[in-house]
Amino acid sequence: MDRLTSWERRTRVALIAIGTGFLLGWAVPVLALGLPTPAHVALWHLQVVCWALFTADYLIRLVLAPRRLSFVLRNVPALLVVLLPLLRPLWLLRALLLVQVVAERVRLPLRVRAVVYVGGTAVFLGLVGSVAVLDVERGAPDANIETIGDALWWSLVTMTTVGYGDRFPVTGEGRLVAAGLMIAGIALLGVVTAAIASWFVERFERTAAADRRTEAELAQVTAELVELRRTVAELSARLAPR
Amino acid sequence: MDRLTSWERRTRVALIAIGTGFLLGWAVPVLALGLPTPAHVALWHLQVVCWALFTADYLIRLVLAPRRLSFVLRNVPALLVVLLPLLRPLWLLRALLLVQVVAERVRLPLRVRAVVYVGGTAVFLGLVGSVAVLDVERGAPDANIETIGDALWWSLVTMTTVGYGDRFPVTGEGRLVAAGLMIAGIALLGVVTAAIASWFVERFERTAAADRRTEAELAQVTAELVELRRTVAELSARLAPR
Amino acid sequence: MDRLTSWERRTRVALIAIGTGFLLGWAVPVLALGLPTPAHVALWHLQVVCWALFTADYLIRLVLAPRRLSFVLRNVPALLVVLLPLLRPLWLLRALLLVQVVAERVRLPLRVRAVVYVGGTAVFLGLVGSVAVLDVERGAPDANIETIGDALWWSLVTMTTVGYGDRFPVTGEGRLVAAGLMIAGIALLGVVTAAIASWFVERFERTAAADRRTEAELAQVTAELVELRRTVAELSARLAPR
Amino acid sequence: MDRLTSWERRTRVALIAIGTGFLLGWAVPVLALGLPTPAHVALWHLQVVCWALFTADYLIRLVLAPRRLSFVLRNVPALLVVLLPLLRPLWLLRALLLVQVVAERVRLPLRVRAVVYVGGTAVFLGLVGSVAVLDVERGAPDANIETIGDALWWSLVTMTTVGYGDRFPVTGEGRLVAAGLMIAGIALLGVVTAAIASWFVERFERTAAADRRTEAELAQVTAELVELRRTVAELSARLAPR
Repeated sequence: MDRLTSWERRTRVALIAIGTGFLLGWAVPVLALGLPTPAHVALWHLQVVCWALFTADYLIRLVLAPRRLSFVLRNVPALLVVLLPLLRPLWLLRALLLVQVVAERVRLPLRVRAVVYVGGTAVFLGLVGSVAVLDVERGAPDANIETIGDALWWSLVTMTTVGYGDRFPVTGEGRLVAAGLMIAGIALLGVVTAAIASWFVERFERTAAADRRTEAELAQVTAELVELRRTVAELSARLAPR
Repeated sequence: MDRLTSWERRTRVALIAIGTGFLLGWAVPVLALGLPTPAHVALWHLQVVCWALFTADYLIRLVLAPRRLSFVLRNVPALLVVLLPLLRPLWLLRALLLVQVVAERVRLPLRVRAVVYVGGTAVFLGLVGSVAVLDVERGAPDANIETIGDALWWSLVTMTTVGYGDRFPVTGEGRLVAAGLMIAGIALLGVVTAAIASWFVERFERTAAADRRTEAELAQVTAELVELRRTVAELSARLAPR
Repeated sequence: MDRLTSWERRTRVALIAIGTGFLLGWAVPVLALGLPTPAHVALWHLQVVCWALFTADYLIRLVLAPRRLSFVLRNVPALLVVLLPLLRPLWLLRALLLVQVVAERVRLPLRVRAVVYVGGTAVFLGLVGSVAVLDVERGAPDANIETIGDALWWSLVTMTTVGYGDRFPVTGEGRLVAAGLMIAGIALLGVVTAAIASWFVERFERTAAADRRTEAELAQVTAELVELRRTVAELSARLAPR
Repeated sequence: MDRLTSWERRTRVALIAIGTGFLLGWAVPVLALGLPTPAHVALWHLQVVCWALFTADYLIRLVLAPRRLSFVLRNVPALLVVLLPLLRPLWLLRALLLVQVVAERVRLPLRVRAVVYVGGTAVFLGLVGSVAVLDVERGAPDANIETIGDALWWSLVTMTTVGYGDRFPVTGEGRLVAAGLMIAGIALLGVVTAAIASWFVERFERTAAADRRTEAELAQVTAELVELRRTVAELSARLAPR
């Protein structure tokens, strides 16, 4: 195990904490409208500190990487996040590691784990998407997503592809958030269907395998009987008076 | 079989009856607007009696359970239902046992049973969801679901994820009901797709297995012929004049 | 083959023709608004004659059936259609036999046949649903489906579960037609997904089977070599000076 | 390899270039509203030249084809495109060859390739559909898709089958484009679900195969032991003093 992997393993939990801190620093001012100015400033500082820690983590990993060019090429999103604070919502996906850690601790069947993982991801993405869309839509002209309740309802209606159209984003940024939620919703839908389908297939496989085994055993028994009959015939031939 | 299982098996049908009673006590006042006051009171009493019976059943099962803490932990929903009458629609899911009982009586292929079960669940959830949404939406400001016809139409449009948006819930409770219907709709959709997919896979499996069997038989015949040729050659060698 | 099966096989094409006739007698007055009265009357007579022929076919099959009660029980829809002219759109499903006949003529892989069948069914149901919804919606208060173009667009938007909500049925009958189209759309969607999934699975099966075969062949070759080595050792032992 | 196949292989890249040229000549005037007249004329000429090259390619392939009637029958879309300039958007599908070429270069697992192909096709169809719908909708009475931003948003909402209904085509041509996008969206959705499902199935297959192998090995070992025991018994019988 090289030093980069070792570093990444040791910092995993810390990065989740930093991501959660950033999430709070970003989401609380959006959700709590009547926040006093000092709290706003404190949360802003929290965001900045978390950003600085992400940057430091990126630089340390770059130094530790055996081949730096390959590291940069394979970690383009991380670099973009460090360089462009505008892409901050992307950072939030780091907090998904939390789900991953939990999923690794508990040893469940693959399908159950898939559904748990999908459920956790769906809830997390729905919450983050709701806050993000509320942040960019509130105050826009003709906007119809003005409260967190509307935003949560909208993200549910979007991720399930129901799409009533009573609430929808009208700004470019809101539509980008919507695109992410739609694609995530479709992928998650696919995982649910696939988990059920593979369960069905496995059930039928097992039944078919049992059938085949029975067939094979019968064939073997038949072969044994044939052999036995032959041996007996041979014996009787030998014992017959010559 | 321990006493808890035995109790649960013996009370199954009774619990369905109690659930149906509760369902009637809850749904009839919502659907029949011009109901006289005595009938309202009677139906309210029916609800209370069914609630009391559910509580009694919970307590009896708690007493019968070999390990009580484990029983409480694994039956959190049942406890919530007993403690918080506000969660009453959750109780209605018990009536689904009825579908289960029917599905167990009739011995059908797994896929057919899955589709029957899915169909029954979909119809039941759609009906309960329609009554629930009508209960919370009717009379709300700006509500557009005001009759049972609209509510049934809305729940169909929601569960199929079509989502025209001509009718949609505007209250928080209505949106919770909608969330349940959407997630149920997606899961049921997944089961239908999965049943068809596994049928296709099984069909191809069987064809492929037949092909493999034919191949194996051919190989066997070839081997037998080779052996025969060898034996004949040996015999002819022996019979040849030395 | 009993006489009922023989009758059903011989009348299949005729029943498609009668179904098509009924379809024309039902659809043309809906689509051609400025139709002169004599044409209306003629088309009405066409409907009546086709209905009479369906009734005659039902009675003949009832007479031919070996066990009449079982026949009645298994052909409830056909009986309903004969008894209740209001259910006439159900008859139209008979014309689907046409698709079936075509699908049986051409020998295609199961998946291709499934997709062709699904495509044909989708187009047919979409067309029939469009005419049916136009028939019941046109002229209703607040209706927004007033032309066949709108009706076709609506049925496409419904069957794909997109559901913009720019057009939607407002009458009870229109909503029943919509329910049929939605459920059909979902089932057809499931068949398409399932066909693709089973193709993927089969591809991987084949690769895995090839791998297994190679393994088995290697094992056989190894066994042969071991046997050969043993024989050679035996021979050398025999030839060794005693 | 006959001359037609050889021609088609050699002209593949050129046809992509011609398709891209046609695409530019068609899309740029739609997207750049304030284009000066000379640029309009130049782009129109580009379209005409590309059309002429497509026609020439069709004629050359017709001449090279071993059986011309069969060639015409199997290339109906190509003929239609050459005959009816109104079907020009269909030509654009040729540019999909670009995706195919890229997919063939890089050797990836079938599932990954399928998802890459699906992603590329989805993005390409979404872009082309957006331009096409903007072209036919802009300026129509009651149209609500008036900018490329709205068109892109609409095509995303359509292909994911969300269908808010805040934007939708109102012209017949726009609805045809929408039909294409909906069907494409459903097919692509099916591929994503199928890829996930087959991955699940394969995972379980592998586990089951490993189980079976272990079983088979155990059976073999048992058989060897039985055989060994028998040989030892035989030996001991021989060595026993007679």
